[in-house]
Amino acid sequence: MNDSQLVRPLPVSGFPEWLPEIRMVEQRWLDVIRSGFERYGFCSVETPSVEPLSVLTAKGETSNEVYALRRLQEDADDTSDSRIGLHFDLTVPFARYTAQHFNELVFPFKRYQMQRVWRGERAQDGRFREFTQCDIDVINVDRLPLHFDAELPRMIHEVMTALDLPEWTLGINNRKVLQGFYEGLGIADPLAVIRAVDKLDKVGPEGVARLLSGELGLPARTVDSCLALARLRGEGPAVVDAVRDLGVTSDLLAEGLDELGYVLDSLGDLPAGAVVADLSIARGLDYYTGTVYEGKFTDWPDYGSICSGGRYENLTGSFIRRGLPGVGMSIGLTRIFAKLLAEGLLETGPKCPSQVLVVIPADERRRAAETTAAGLRRRGMNVELYHQADKVAKQLRYASRKGIPFVWFPPFEEGGNHEVKNLTTGEQTPADPAVWVPSPRWTSSEEVGQMVAVSMTKR
Amino acid sequence: MNDSQLVRPLPVSGFPEWLPEIRMVEQRWLDVIRSGFERYGFCSVETPSVEPLSVLTAKGETSNEVYALRRLQEDADDTSDSRIGLHFDLTVPFARYTAQHFNELVFPFKRYQMQRVWRGERAQDGRFREFTQCDIDVINVDRLPLHFDAELPRMIHEVMTALDLPEWTLGINNRKVLQGFYEGLGIADPLAVIRAVDKLDKVGPEGVARLLSGELGLPARTVDSCLALARLRGEGPAVVDAVRDLGVTSDLLAEGLDELGYVLDSLGDLPAGAVVADLSIARGLDYYTGTVYEGKFTDWPDYGSICSGGRYENLTGSFIRRGLPGVGMSIGLTRIFAKLLAEGLLETGPKCPSQVLVVIPADERRRAAETTAAGLRRRGMNVELYHQADKVAKQLRYASRKGIPFVWFPPFEEGGNHEVKNLTTGEQTPADPAVWVPSPRWTSSEEVGQMVAVSMTKR
Repeated sequence: MNDSQLVRPLPVSGFPEWLPEIRMVEQRWLDVIRSGFERYGFCSVETPSVEPLSVLTAKGETSNEVYALRRLQEDADDTSDSRIGLHFDLTVPFARYTAQHFNELVFPFKRYQMQRVWRGERAQDGRFREFTQCDIDVINVDRLPLHFDAELPRMIHEVMTALDLPEWTLGINNRKVLQGFYEGLGIADPLAVIRAVDKLDKVGPEGVARLLSGELGLPARTVDSCLALARLRGEGPAVVDAVRDLGVTSDLLAEGLDELGYVLDSLGDLPAGAVVADLSIARGLDYYTGTVYEGKFTDWPDYGSICSGGRYENLTGSFIRRGLPGVGMSIGLTRIFAKLLAEGLLETGPKCPSQVLVVIPADERRRAAETTAAGLRRRGMNVELYHQADKVAKQLRYASRKGIPFVWFPPFEEGGNHEVKNLTTGEQTPADPAVWVPSPRWTSSEEVGQMVAVSMTKR
Repeated sequence: MNDSQLVRPLPVSGFPEWLPEIRMVEQRWLDVIRSGFERYGFCSVETPSVEPLSVLTAKGETSNEVYALRRLQEDADDTSDSRIGLHFDLTVPFARYTAQHFNELVFPFKRYQMQRVWRGERAQDGRFREFTQCDIDVINVDRLPLHFDAELPRMIHEVMTALDLPEWTLGINNRKVLQGFYEGLGIADPLAVIRAVDKLDKVGPEGVARLLSGELGLPARTVDSCLALARLRGEGPAVVDAVRDLGVTSDLLAEGLDELGYVLDSLGDLPAGAVVADLSIARGLDYYTGTVYEGKFTDWPDYGSICSGGRYENLTGSFIRRGLPGVGMSIGLTRIFAKLLAEGLLETGPKCPSQVLVVIPADERRRAAETTAAGLRRRGMNVELYHQADKVAKQLRYASRKGIPFVWFPPFEEGGNHEVKNLTTGEQTPADPAVWVPSPRWTSSEEVGQMVAVSMTKR
């Protein structure tokens, strides 16, 4: 075969994949997150990777990011899948799911959803075309207690703590505070101001000032007030008083400040720096109506948000008449994971989950080695049997290269002794396969629950 | 809003989704399968959902099933994702992955991969457009020990046993036996005969006979011999002798019978009916070169294969010059799961993973209830806090509707007693939140490993 006939096995830009020793860490993260969500009784939901384009574009604005599907070889008789596309987030599918199964769900409906999503955007630092998000949402009929606006960030805090991430802070704001404040200033189109303030990270205060005075035609004093609000940031309910000190009033502002104060107060037991009120946070998406969240790494503020979310009054409005208010948060798993990997901050796992490699000393001892391996497996260990009788040095090298911590030597002759070698210490000792247990070197799935428990703040 | 403005939240044909109480069972299945694969030291790999079309169509034959992606709003400057499609199995991505990361992997490379795959085929009973497969493969450089041809079906047997499926049998054959037998009969194009015999299920023996005598022009006596071989079926190595008794000989046939005998002999300790040699199994895909597998439900033989696979010598041949023989098997998770669901054979879970609902007796006792819930969570339980002070009967009804087995009553006043109600028995007793443990009612992730261990045959 000529080289010219070979297909080059190249990665596709924006579609990450990991070597086994990294994939193992990603899977452990997913286990930790899942366990943390279930700890609060949230149930798992998965939706199809696709939705009808009518569902994906029900809100209109994100249509340019959608990957639509087409069959390479179209079947003219069967156009049943000609109008579908990959979901670009888990929020739209969740809204559709809730509306579709409305009569079969128990409300308040608390679900988590950990799936890949796809966006046809230009791949760049922290932006992927295929990535995994981990979402939690609570949605209820008619009215949703404010309690959940505090429970969700607590869950996210505990899960992220269990992942042992570099320092990060969850910023919290409330859209009613922003909108009520702008209304109190006599601004006719508060949403336009919210969208302008949302660009603060990108264009800076001067840029936002230009937008507000130029495009929106606001007077200088009003612009100053908007920027003064956006500058407020602080831990605990004191920041609520600081907003009040700006001297603007409206009913909506008062309501928003009550909500913001309640959420901050409820989270007061979290460690210093975990949660901060940040009045600059707007979250551009129009569907948020109350509390909004945005988490960022302390050391990489420009990397963008690593988790985000908020409260919405009418997410399912495109699908169902009934009012279904909810609050949700999303962890950008791939974005966080890829960043830590790039920064060299990820302690990668071994290349396989095996705890023990059982040596095959000689061909005639293969069945005995198989029996030993099977016995260890039945006792709950992950065990590889070396695949052929080979020099012991070669079998040891295989274990070492794959990061298998223990090598088991079944007796070289009938009735002989078992021995086990600890590759970390080099120690080799006699061992009884019926009672021996390995010292842990890597987190088993059983320990994940414990990691989550340890991450929980003592109250 | 008028009804006409609503988008109907309809399911897309061929793209299944489940209610939470069913999704919970699916997730448990995935955990059991993963745990079973890791028990043998196989590492997890996930690949992107897409591959370049050049990779997907490297073998040509399956191009009609591929969903290609197109961006709804094409960016003329950026065509970097214009030639990609969703993978239709996990074998092609695995071959590409192995070739691409060849220098970073340790061989023999043993991986499992549990992902969704997509096929643009007509949706029908047991056929989905999006479904989950669970694959295991071992691949090695130059030569792969026959040992693995027996290890893989053992793993699959143990995993399927842990899932407690209705009776099924794994049929095993060897392509060398078929090809060697046909060569021994003097047939010039054995692959054409294999493809014809592969249609046995669909067209019956008469149909195959017509294909062999008609299209392939084989003499009647040769056709009879081909059908006699395809009729052989039996447990244990005796069936190997039965093939020999047909009186056909060739070197390849002898080699194939040795391999088949070895695999059957190695699996001899599995329960009766678990594995059967079935000389009619051909597995149409051309890349299989040795052992082939095909599992079917005993009661629904026409439902098609629920797991399958085989040995291949040159799967990566499109991507790399080096010879990389392998053997792999795939569990059709969605196909099996959907069948049991449709037959009413799936014991669905509760609607959430919560073990305990903590009652909020009154608004002023909310913080105390929160502290109780947090304490139980730290001790490893999945706990929901009811979201507001409500009539106790309403809170109990919520627990009952969601299938939460225990309801916790924090003291109604400072210094009072905790009580817990078992909703299954109706019994309500005093309880200490620092030491109480729930009796299990649903399999926790910690117990999954144990289920897998129990499924393993005692050797």
